[in-house]
Amino acid sequence: MMSQLSANEKNPRKLISLLCNHFYDHGWVSGTGGGMSIKMDGKIYIAPSGVQKEMISEDEIFVLNDEGYCLECPLPSKNLKLSECTPLFMKAYQIRNAGSVIHAHSINAVLATLVVQGNEFKISHQEMIKGIKKGSSDISHRFDETLIVPIIENTCFEADLAASMAEAIEKYPNSNAVLVRRHGFYVWGKTWKTAKTMAECYDYLFKLSVEMHKLRIQAVKES
Amino acid sequence: MMSQLSANEKNPRKLISLLCNHFYDHGWVSGTGGGMSIKMDGKIYIAPSGVQKEMISEDEIFVLNDEGYCLECPLPSKNLKLSECTPLFMKAYQIRNAGSVIHAHSINAVLATLVVQGNEFKISHQEMIKGIKKGSSDISHRFDETLIVPIIENTCFEADLAASMAEAIEKYPNSNAVLVRRHGFYVWGKTWKTAKTMAECYDYLFKLSVEMHKLRIQAVKES
Amino acid sequence: MMSQLSANEKNPRKLISLLCNHFYDHGWVSGTGGGMSIKMDGKIYIAPSGVQKEMISEDEIFVLNDEGYCLECPLPSKNLKLSECTPLFMKAYQIRNAGSVIHAHSINAVLATLVVQGNEFKISHQEMIKGIKKGSSDISHRFDETLIVPIIENTCFEADLAASMAEAIEKYPNSNAVLVRRHGFYVWGKTWKTAKTMAECYDYLFKLSVEMHKLRIQAVKES
Amino acid sequence: MMSQLSANEKNPRKLISLLCNHFYDHGWVSGTGGGMSIKMDGKIYIAPSGVQKEMISEDEIFVLNDEGYCLECPLPSKNLKLSECTPLFMKAYQIRNAGSVIHAHSINAVLATLVVQGNEFKISHQEMIKGIKKGSSDISHRFDETLIVPIIENTCFEADLAASMAEAIEKYPNSNAVLVRRHGFYVWGKTWKTAKTMAECYDYLFKLSVEMHKLRIQAVKES
Repeated sequence: MMSQLSANEKNPRKLISLLCNHFYDHGWVSGTGGGMSIKMDGKIYIAPSGVQKEMISEDEIFVLNDEGYCLECPLPSKNLKLSECTPLFMKAYQIRNAGSVIHAHSINAVLATLVVQGNEFKISHQEMIKGIKKGSSDISHRFDETLIVPIIENTCFEADLAASMAEAIEKYPNSNAVLVRRHGFYVWGKTWKTAKTMAECYDYLFKLSVEMHKLRIQAVKES
Repeated sequence: MMSQLSANEKNPRKLISLLCNHFYDHGWVSGTGGGMSIKMDGKIYIAPSGVQKEMISEDEIFVLNDEGYCLECPLPSKNLKLSECTPLFMKAYQIRNAGSVIHAHSINAVLATLVVQGNEFKISHQEMIKGIKKGSSDISHRFDETLIVPIIENTCFEADLAASMAEAIEKYPNSNAVLVRRHGFYVWGKTWKTAKTMAECYDYLFKLSVEMHKLRIQAVKES
Repeated sequence: MMSQLSANEKNPRKLISLLCNHFYDHGWVSGTGGGMSIKMDGKIYIAPSGVQKEMISEDEIFVLNDEGYCLECPLPSKNLKLSECTPLFMKAYQIRNAGSVIHAHSINAVLATLVVQGNEFKISHQEMIKGIKKGSSDISHRFDETLIVPIIENTCFEADLAASMAEAIEKYPNSNAVLVRRHGFYVWGKTWKTAKTMAECYDYLFKLSVEMHKLRIQAVKES
Repeated sequence: MMSQLSANEKNPRKLISLLCNHFYDHGWVSGTGGGMSIKMDGKIYIAPSGVQKEMISEDEIFVLNDEGYCLECPLPSKNLKLSECTPLFMKAYQIRNAGSVIHAHSINAVLATLVVQGNEFKISHQEMIKGIKKGSSDISHRFDETLIVPIIENTCFEADLAASMAEAIEKYPNSNAVLVRRHGFYVWGKTWKTAKTMAECYDYLFKLSVEMHKLRIQAVKES
């Protein structure tokens, strides 16, 4: 990795551009899929819909207020659409007071939702679980706790996911992610750093669970 | 990814050079395999045959007219050959009025054609299906529709594929790709962006279908 | 790879920054996990805890003496914590007179510890075994020898691993690595180069052993 | 990939440095393993042994004549050793009049040698077979031909492989590669470009054969 992405970067437009480029290398935003958003100084910055996420320029970002009203839009000549994920990003901002939300079309996540029968992804006794905070708190999960991520069913239109995502967020206050079956996952955090590093932990655990399934090892260890 | 590839790039020679370099990282054009073409202002730009695709320079591109007559050729001293894929690229330009065609030797695609018994790759209920347009239209596939990609049998000489590829394109008007068994796939779109992003969606779905096969999960979900 | 990392680099702060960035590409330090340390001129340089390892800057490194007393600390305004791995790094410095220690959250390592039943990872008859030195000596393992890496059980708090890691290091004088079940591995060497290249060999062998397990091939060849 | 590697590069010292860096990204030369050599104007340029292959500098290359006599050596202060692969590289230069030889510690190659019982790796009906020339000729393998790569058993000391490698090269005049069980593979060509692109084709086919084995599909198609 030799990106210009720096931990000190403060410009949300530049951050979204560089982070989406970064996520492309993980396979999270290929084929114009996925997306991300950052909230800064009360403004919500969102990547546009249906474009190559690894090549977003800073003047292609939408800026909304808390009610979803567009404060700064890309030039009409650019012919850009607001991300279809916007209502879902908003749920994380409203219910969890998030500072950043990432949506990834990770194959690891899709396979994890296919291996699991019910509506909960569970894994325990993995060091990487400690990288996940409990809800909005600063408390990390313990190594020997069972991490639970709710799984909601995908819908034909992304906006239709908003209600079930809101329900899942309310029902699982300790989770900072929601899996969408046959689709990917949403993850949020207080800052873009927290959202990004938790996304990395979640994706690692999704991949691990699928590999463990192939090796016939239970994701949740019996005590 | 820190390529100079930009969504605003307009020069087809530079685009082919940068895109082939980009595709190399996906494993689509290793070993001089694969290729790509862009049509701009009535001219068809094509990567040369049998060279390292990640290192094509701008003066190594062939430029043809609609009938396949060479308008601008690389210097004879370069000793370059027109891509063997040219007759297949032409089929997509002629039958579908494409603006760009990509040919990838993806291992995911080869394995997908080996896992499937018949002559159709099928997958349903995957979010990434929505990244695929229906034929030349602007209408996307729905999440719950079954995406079908025709599979043709490979031949000893690439040019001999042209007839069966034309037949498959005619027979499957909704598909923007043709799989070639034990070989790879062709994908096209109105612009290089559409072709590239659909190629990413198709390849993602091919990979997913193989992993699902390993996990004994059907690619097409029963309703 | 187009990093600025050079074999001639002497600055331990710059080395830790560039090497952690490098390790991120291997999936060793994602989600703020993992870490590394270099000992130079009697000073021990350590990456900070809980930050994005691929973006560490040179002024974020902690410098300790042999007793673990902090000689040079990052500015308090940076609000950084010393790595939780510090007591474990110290064990390799104290017991083995190491010059560098790497800690990786590699999925290959985690899976290798799950496939093995007992407390020893074993593999034989692999060329890459020759890349591993015997303890602090300059003697390499032979191709036909059985490489043994002790596996210790993970604990809820990283510092609690120190005692069992020390015990494993003492008990396996030929090993330059310790696996931590469901967590990752620690590896050390006389210099950062030895630690890094042995880490690459170990990780390669962990991955190979998991793939061999899937293919039902024994990791240790019967003579 | 954003390397400075260019198809027009003529300097063999620079080529070896850039190509080894390139191969590192494929996992061919991790842990100081693997190596490469180029013959130009009667001089044989070889990467040094036991160093990080992704960071070789141009003044670290050994230059030998046809008899293996060192014409230009790195400064003694650099304390470098000639590659242990040298006798094996020499076999390809002497028996096949090669212009470049690559040695890769590819996991795909190691697994391919473990899946196969006998002393021949075979695969047929794959497009990528066409990327492999028949011996020193300019004739490519056909899609429907069976590509055969001899497998020799690994030895404890790399130099001891020379005799069995020479025997395999003589016995399989159509092959441009030799697999070494539990070790990796050697591949050569008239130029560095031919050696590199054939290495990519071979490695692709090794990977494919292992994946096909997992999916219980025969590598050689019955007619």
